[in-house]
Amino acid sequence: MDTSPTLWWDSDKNCLCYIEQTLLPGEYRIIECRSIDRLATAIRRLEIRGAPALGVAGGYGVAIAALTVKSDAFPAFMEGVKRDAELIRSTRPTAINLGWGIDRVLAAMKTADKPDEACTIALREADTIAREDTACCHAIGKNGAALLPDRCTVLTHCNAGALACSSWGTALGVIRSAVEAGKDVKVIACETRPLLQGARLTAWELARDGIDVTVITDSMAARFMRSGKIDAVVVGADRITHDAVFNKIGTYMHAICARHHRIPFYVAAPLSTFDPEKSEHDVEIEERAREEVTTMGSRVYIPDGAKVKNPAFDATPMDLVTAIITENRVLRQPIDTRSHLSRTTSH
Amino acid sequence: MDTSPTLWWDSDKNCLCYIEQTLLPGEYRIIECRSIDRLATAIRRLEIRGAPALGVAGGYGVAIAALTVKSDAFPAFMEGVKRDAELIRSTRPTAINLGWGIDRVLAAMKTADKPDEACTIALREADTIAREDTACCHAIGKNGAALLPDRCTVLTHCNAGALACSSWGTALGVIRSAVEAGKDVKVIACETRPLLQGARLTAWELARDGIDVTVITDSMAARFMRSGKIDAVVVGADRITHDAVFNKIGTYMHAICARHHRIPFYVAAPLSTFDPEKSEHDVEIEERAREEVTTMGSRVYIPDGAKVKNPAFDATPMDLVTAIITENRVLRQPIDTRSHLSRTTSH
Repeated sequence: MDTSPTLWWDSDKNCLCYIEQTLLPGEYRIIECRSIDRLATAIRRLEIRGAPALGVAGGYGVAIAALTVKSDAFPAFMEGVKRDAELIRSTRPTAINLGWGIDRVLAAMKTADKPDEACTIALREADTIAREDTACCHAIGKNGAALLPDRCTVLTHCNAGALACSSWGTALGVIRSAVEAGKDVKVIACETRPLLQGARLTAWELARDGIDVTVITDSMAARFMRSGKIDAVVVGADRITHDAVFNKIGTYMHAICARHHRIPFYVAAPLSTFDPEKSEHDVEIEERAREEVTTMGSRVYIPDGAKVKNPAFDATPMDLVTAIITENRVLRQPIDTRSHLSRTTSH
Repeated sequence: MDTSPTLWWDSDKNCLCYIEQTLLPGEYRIIECRSIDRLATAIRRLEIRGAPALGVAGGYGVAIAALTVKSDAFPAFMEGVKRDAELIRSTRPTAINLGWGIDRVLAAMKTADKPDEACTIALREADTIAREDTACCHAIGKNGAALLPDRCTVLTHCNAGALACSSWGTALGVIRSAVEAGKDVKVIACETRPLLQGARLTAWELARDGIDVTVITDSMAARFMRSGKIDAVVVGADRITHDAVFNKIGTYMHAICARHHRIPFYVAAPLSTFDPEKSEHDVEIEERAREEVTTMGSRVYIPDGAKVKNPAFDATPMDLVTAIITENRVLRQPIDTRSHLSRTTSH
């Protein structure tokens, strides 16, 4: 299986490299990113997306800030870095990992007292986040693979794959690990309107790995569940509060339909996605541009006289979740994200 | 409100005229159709679509056959007409109204014994179907409008509007009649992948009528239901067996989500859509071309290595339906389509 990373630091070129995801599957292009403004654009345009990948991007964002802020005086330098970090943080409000990656690198820099030293620490910490993310995905994969029977079909939504992480993936990591363990797993990928991450990204990475993948429109999922063709739903997460899982819009309807058909509904996510002190109603759901829904290529599909709503995420209440698959263990009902995290930190 | 028809016979030009629906909302074009092959293409390409409109098109299709079959010998003439009728019938297997319209005109022609006379009868019967369809939509609208409270928001899927009928609409007929009766009704139109009939057609016709309409992707419906913003779901139907409602793919998931949120789920359809002797599993669900899902404009969104499924319809089991709104009355649970039809035919 392909294990090339989604985003990484190129130390020869001294820049962040990443796969430009809006061009897939038609074009595979690597972008070299050297400025905070370029990175902010990349995140806003979803050239880089997916909660764990945003954690890594947030970390490297602080490293880019450290490399580009021009000031010899350390307090002024750190102020500049923090200003840039806030710019990156503001690009996407719902996924928690972005801020988590930023804060982790900023915290590591506290031991420095010179810009040069802070740069080195920032880059090292961002590299560590990326490396840990890959290890984390493999651990999630292994924990989740045990839940999938042999000869099964898994429905997934959006892209919680290698492209949403540094590599391997969370939901798709579970599928990859099951396949690696010798299980026969087929995947139904929901296309995921409006930006088609399921059709464009999930189908692309699974087909490249030789995993049997069928794309359907989001609206077909319930019909496939009713026909008995779906054995499990596995999705990623952008933020997990104590009472809800925030993930790409459409996840909630899959959870309701899975419950209706008594199909297990699994969420695969690293602990960095957890936000257990918050409740569903504390979290802002990003509302994105009208054009994402109205326009495909050069054609406008919705008349000017009609309004459009475009929330990028929805919240699935915890009682619809069969289990959350983390790198540490599988959390089953009753899922208590608070107790789990406190136990984790004492590891 | 706009009451121009969707398809009609132009007796000056002696041809069927219709609004070419694949071009909306960007372009409003009327097509003049004079041949069976052109009509078959129009139906296959969804230039004309929607169950009641297909009933009208089926009727006019037989009239076109009668006008174009060249034979003075009546038996040979009728054989030619029936061959053409079967070609039209084969274009779409799921909506029952197409065959219903064809059979009704063929049955009316049985009283003729000369081609000329048969032509006149065919055209008169097809005109009657069109006229009755409009009356039927107004009756459905009136019956359904009584179910909607004032100041409500209705979610609908696909287009069960004027464009799906000769005019007024079934699901949108209910909304139009409620608005006409002075109620404040807002509409959430699901875009309806893959061919976006909700975005392109429902939004277009409601905006043209000045009815407040907001387009969302199909995957957003459950989120809007959870937020308490939806008071009722109203959809059309392509075929109603004794145990299920066949309608555009995605209808079933809306029905499940409506039940989950205790929102009434109404089906608005004329009795010509009923097929009460059949069961869910007797009905063929049309599988349409891969390209409808993979391609938008000139861009291909799904890699070649991935499979695609594209069923055009799904079946919603009757127990998820709150009521079926027909031209005669509102059928409430327990919905018995058989007893209702037998009572109707004795009217």
